[in-house]
Amino acid sequence: MAASPDRIRAVVDDYVRLVGTGTADEIVALYAEDATVEDPVGTDVRRGHAAIGEFYAPLESMEQETRLLSLRIAGGEAVFHFEIVTRADGAAFTLSPIDHMVFDDDGRVTAMRAFWGEGDLVVS
Amino acid sequence: MAASPDRIRAVVDDYVRLVGTGTADEIVALYAEDATVEDPVGTDVRRGHAAIGEFYAPLESMEQETRLLSLRIAGGEAVFHFEIVTRADGAAFTLSPIDHMVFDDDGRVTAMRAFWGEGDLVVS
Repeated sequence: MAASPDRIRAVVDDYVRLVGTGTADEIVALYAEDATVEDPVGTDVRRGHAAIGEFYAPLESMEQETRLLSLRIAGGEAVFHFEIVTRADGAAFTLSPIDHMVFDDDGRVTAMRAFWGEGDLVVS
Repeated sequence: MAASPDRIRAVVDDYVRLVGTGTADEIVALYAEDATVEDPVGTDVRRGHAAIGEFYAPLESMEQETRLLSLRIAGGEAVFHFEIVTRADGAAFTLSPIDHMVFDDDGRVTAMRAFWGEGDLVVS
């Protein structure tokens, strides 16, 4: 049976929170073993926990705040718009991608694709 | 060559506007001949202009306003959050799906998937 909307909502909440304040290992634990990550869409697809962990590792040393802006769930999949504010060198870099996630029956993410472009980065 | 972000943005703007005030034929013209539509995600996929036209035909007789809330473009694809307000029997029914569209090189939509659930419909 497909993961319930409540379960999917909880995983998305965890994901957004962990991108802000978690470790790469905590984020990777949300993914299925052979999951794929394409971030941003159009770049190379990373597959599996090791490759996905490498992708998230740089986040650990950054000062970031995240918040979920909107979320839609349908058919065991989710799309959500969220905001990541990174503070560095006295500036704030705000990116608000829309991510697409597919889930397995246990609510683990099997595929994530992040939609954003360079033009979406706001520096303030 | 993939459709440019500017071209994709124009098609999304047209789509949102036409869902509000256009005809089914005008909407269908944004789609490639063998395009697919899955709305909402998890329901049967409609394929081709005839099936897609049937899907949009009921919109023509409805009083609707639409507006684009957010849009992200990457790798020849787009996801966008938009709002549809339908007025009927003195009430306003507001739905704000997040749609995913894939485009061919000419900027025609080859696949659309709309993410929303019954719980996302707001009646006021």
